[in-house]
Amino acid sequence: MTHAFQATCAATGESLPGEFAEATAEQIDFVCQQAAKAALQLRELRPETLGEFLSAVATEIRSRRDEIVSRCQLETGYVNARVEGEFDRAMGQLDLFSRLAVERPWNRVTSEAGDPERRPFPKPSMARRFVPVGPVAVFGACNFPLAISVIGNDFVAAIATGNPVVVKSHPSHPGTCELLGEAVKEVVKRLELPLGTFGLLHGRSPETSVRLVSHPAIAAVGFTGSPQGGRALAKAILDRENPIPIFAELGSTNPVFVTPDAMAVRARAIAEGFAASLRFGNGHMCTKPGVVVIQEQDADAFVKDTRDAFAKYPNLPMLSGPVAEAFDRGIERLRTAKGVASLFVAEAIETEGPWHRGAHWFGMNAETAMRDGWLHSETFGPVSILVRCRDEAEMLRVAKKFHGSLTTTLHTETSENEFAQRWLRIAERFGGRIILNGWPTGMEIGSATQHGGPFPASLDGRSTSVGHASLERFVRPLCFQNWPEGAMLAECSGS
Amino acid sequence: MTHAFQATCAATGESLPGEFAEATAEQIDFVCQQAAKAALQLRELRPETLGEFLSAVATEIRSRRDEIVSRCQLETGYVNARVEGEFDRAMGQLDLFSRLAVERPWNRVTSEAGDPERRPFPKPSMARRFVPVGPVAVFGACNFPLAISVIGNDFVAAIATGNPVVVKSHPSHPGTCELLGEAVKEVVKRLELPLGTFGLLHGRSPETSVRLVSHPAIAAVGFTGSPQGGRALAKAILDRENPIPIFAELGSTNPVFVTPDAMAVRARAIAEGFAASLRFGNGHMCTKPGVVVIQEQDADAFVKDTRDAFAKYPNLPMLSGPVAEAFDRGIERLRTAKGVASLFVAEAIETEGPWHRGAHWFGMNAETAMRDGWLHSETFGPVSILVRCRDEAEMLRVAKKFHGSLTTTLHTETSENEFAQRWLRIAERFGGRIILNGWPTGMEIGSATQHGGPFPASLDGRSTSVGHASLERFVRPLCFQNWPEGAMLAECSGS
Repeated sequence: MTHAFQATCAATGESLPGEFAEATAEQIDFVCQQAAKAALQLRELRPETLGEFLSAVATEIRSRRDEIVSRCQLETGYVNARVEGEFDRAMGQLDLFSRLAVERPWNRVTSEAGDPERRPFPKPSMARRFVPVGPVAVFGACNFPLAISVIGNDFVAAIATGNPVVVKSHPSHPGTCELLGEAVKEVVKRLELPLGTFGLLHGRSPETSVRLVSHPAIAAVGFTGSPQGGRALAKAILDRENPIPIFAELGSTNPVFVTPDAMAVRARAIAEGFAASLRFGNGHMCTKPGVVVIQEQDADAFVKDTRDAFAKYPNLPMLSGPVAEAFDRGIERLRTAKGVASLFVAEAIETEGPWHRGAHWFGMNAETAMRDGWLHSETFGPVSILVRCRDEAEMLRVAKKFHGSLTTTLHTETSENEFAQRWLRIAERFGGRIILNGWPTGMEIGSATQHGGPFPASLDGRSTSVGHASLERFVRPLCFQNWPEGAMLAECSGS
Repeated sequence: MTHAFQATCAATGESLPGEFAEATAEQIDFVCQQAAKAALQLRELRPETLGEFLSAVATEIRSRRDEIVSRCQLETGYVNARVEGEFDRAMGQLDLFSRLAVERPWNRVTSEAGDPERRPFPKPSMARRFVPVGPVAVFGACNFPLAISVIGNDFVAAIATGNPVVVKSHPSHPGTCELLGEAVKEVVKRLELPLGTFGLLHGRSPETSVRLVSHPAIAAVGFTGSPQGGRALAKAILDRENPIPIFAELGSTNPVFVTPDAMAVRARAIAEGFAASLRFGNGHMCTKPGVVVIQEQDADAFVKDTRDAFAKYPNLPMLSGPVAEAFDRGIERLRTAKGVASLFVAEAIETEGPWHRGAHWFGMNAETAMRDGWLHSETFGPVSILVRCRDEAEMLRVAKKFHGSLTTTLHTETSENEFAQRWLRIAERFGGRIILNGWPTGMEIGSATQHGGPFPASLDGRSTSVGHASLERFVRPLCFQNWPEGAMLAECSGS
C-alpha cells in the first residue's frame, strides 16, 4: 500500500488539490536504473545538446509561468513579487547554465609531455581532464521552490556537466515540483533525450530520502535543507557499499557587523537596510541577517530606527505549519532566556491566517551571546539577534565565535581600515561570501559566486551550490597516461 | 597511565629499540590548540616563507638520510633500493611543493565588475579567491613511510597552502615517523616558525585517531589506509559539532586488460611487465595490478610466461605481522573458493623470516569473477587474479563490474581501436588514472596527476591525494562582495 499526501495552503492552512504518492522502493529503483542508463547515453551527446536541453526547459517553463507561479504562491504563502522574482532568477540560471554546458569551464585540462629518454625511468605523457560523475540525486530547499528545486541550482549544474538528475520533490511544495517536473519531462520527450535524464519522486518520509541516496546508481547528491537532515543523509551515504560525495547547504546566521563610524554616517539607512534584508521573503532566506553586532554606544538609536523600519512591513505566512511551529519554539526559547531582551515583536492580527508571522528581534550583550551559544543558533524565519559590544576588541572576540556561515557583512568607513583588516582575517575563517557595506540577501549568480562555507553553511566548505563553480561538484578528473594525443584521448572524453 | 608500544623488525618479527607513547587526550588537545594558533600566524607569512620551509625540510632530511633509510628498512622490510627510491620521491615532492607554495596554482581568481546602474538592482562587484582551510590532520600509509607519511603528500599540500599539520604517526613505522618529525621540528625552530606549524602524535588505538579528527581545531583530514579505517574516521567526523572534509585514499584493484592483438605482438613482455609491477615493493603498492583480464585463447601461454617471470623474484618480508596474517587469510579465501584455480604459489624457504611472502596468483573464468565479487576484493600484498573471458564482449561485461579504482590499464594495438573506445567509456566510470600499454605502479607526480577515484579508491573521487591538484583539498574559496580592488581585497588574502 502506498501512502499519499496533500499540499497545504500556507496562507490558510487548508489542504490544496492534488495527491502525491510516497515513492515506493520499486519506483525509486526504477527511476535510478533509468538514470544509470541515461548517464551512458548522455555521455555520447554533444555539449550543445545539453545546452539546448536547458534552454528548452527554460522556454517550456516560461510558457507555463502563470500556472507555476500561482501554485507556488499557494504552497509557499510568498507574495507575488517574491515568487515572480524567484521565477526570473530560476530562468536566468537555466539560460546561464545552458551557455556553460557548451563553454565547459570545469574542464581545466592539464597535460605533461612524455620523455622516453628520462633516467632512471622514461616519463609517460599525462593529460588530466574531467568527466561527469553519474546520476545526481537532488533535494531542493523548502524556501526556494523554483531556483533551488526541480529545475534549480543542482539540476542545472548536473545537467550542464552531462549527468542525469533524480529529484526528490519537497513535501511542502509538491504541486510546484510536479508542474516543473512535467515541463522537464515534456522537453525530454520532445528532444528525444533518454527518459532517465530526469526523474521526479515524491515523498515526505525520511526513509524515502535515505533509499534514494543509498541506491547504487546514484553517484552524487545535492541537498539544501537543515543541518540535521544533511547530517542524516551523509551518515546514510557512509553506510552504502560505495559511499559517494554529498554537497549540502545547511544553515547560516549571516552575521552583520556595524562599526561606530558607519553608524555615525548612515545609521538610519543601515536600520532600513537591515529591516528590508530580514523581511525579504519574510526571513525565509538562507542568507537572512540572523545576527547584528554593534557597539553599545550605538544601540539605543539603532534599536529605535530599526523598530520604525520593522513596523512598515506586514505579517506574512510562514511556509508551512511545521515551519511556523519551529519558528514559535525558537521565539519562545529566546523570549524566556536569561540576559535576552525583546526589542521588537510583530503583533498578530486577527484576520490573518494561522501561520502568519512578522518580525521578532532580540537583544543581548556580547558576553551572553558568546556564553549561551546564540551566535550559532539559527531560527528559520523573520527573527534576528542584536549583540551589543563594549568596544572594537569585543566585536572581534564575538567574530571569532561564529560557526561557518554562507555570508558575513561589515558596515564600516575607510577611517576604520585597521579594524576592517583585523575583522577580515577572522571573517575569512567562517564566512563564504564577505560583504562590504551591503546586505547578504539578493545573491548574484556568476563566475565569482561562492555560496558555501564551513559547517553548517556546507558539509564541505570548499564547494559552492550556486554559480559557475557549482559545476565542479558533478565532474571528476581523469588522468590519461600514455594515450596518443588526437587518437584515443580526444575521442574519448566528450569535448 | 599512558600506554607505550614498540616497533617490530619486519624481516625477523623482533622488537626494535625505542618506545612510543600512545598520545593522551591532553596531548592531542595541546597539539591541536597549538596548530589553531599557528594557522593564524601562518596566514600572515609571505608565500615564499612557506616555500622556504618545505625546501629547508628537504635539506634537513637529506642530511639525515642514512639514519632514516636504515630505520625505515628495519620497520618495513623493504629492500634498500625500494626505500632509497621512495626517499628520492619524497624529496622531489618536497622540492616541487616548495615551488608550488610560491606559484599558488590553486588560487584561481575570478572576478566580476559591479554595475551600479543595473536594473532592477545594482550589481555589486565580486571577486573569488582561495584561503587556507585551517589545521590539517594527516594519517600516512603503512606502505609509504616517507612519501605518504610525516613529510609526505598531505604534509606538503597542507603546508604549501598555508595550513599547520598534525600527523598521527603510523604504528607500523613509528621510528621512521619520529626521525622525520624531529627533522621537521628542528626546521620549524630554526626558521622561527610558529611551533604549532607541525605536530606529531603517536598511537595505535583507533580512539586516538578518532580523538584527533574530532578536535574542534582540526579543519580537514588527509588519510591513506583501509576502506574500513577511512569509513570509521568519516563517521566520527559526522559526529563532530561541525563536520569537516576528509580526503581518504582507501583501496584499489587496478585492473589490467590485455587484448588478443597485444598478446600476439608482445606476450612475453606483458608477462614480465606484469610480474615486475606486481612484485614492485613486494605487492605493497596502492596501484598494484590486482586483477588481469584476458581472453581464454591467450591464457595458457600467458600463464606459462608469467610463472617463469614470477620465479625470478625472491620472497620478501611483509610490512608487519598483522599485514602478513591478513595476506594469509586472503590467500586462504582464494585457495578454497569454488571455481578458483591456483596458478602460482611462491614456496616458503626455511631460512626466511616469519613474515616473508612471495607471489601468489589465482585464475578463474569471468562468470566466477563477476558472480563471487572477486573483482572488488583487494588483498594487500603480492597476489593477483587472472580473469579469463570468452570474447571482447565478456571483457567489457567484466569491466562494468569494477568498483572505483585508482588506475586501470589497457594493453592493446591500434588494430583494436573500436574495442579500445568502448573500453574507455567504461573505464572512465571507475578509474582515476587510465593507462595505455603501461603498468600502474610507478606514478608520476605532476600537474596532470590524478591519484583518486570513486570509492574505494577515494571517499570523494573528485580529489587527488598526489600531484599539483592535491593542493585544492586544503584551500577554500571566498567571494569578496563590494570590496574596492587594491584596498582591502588585495591586502586581505595573502597573495
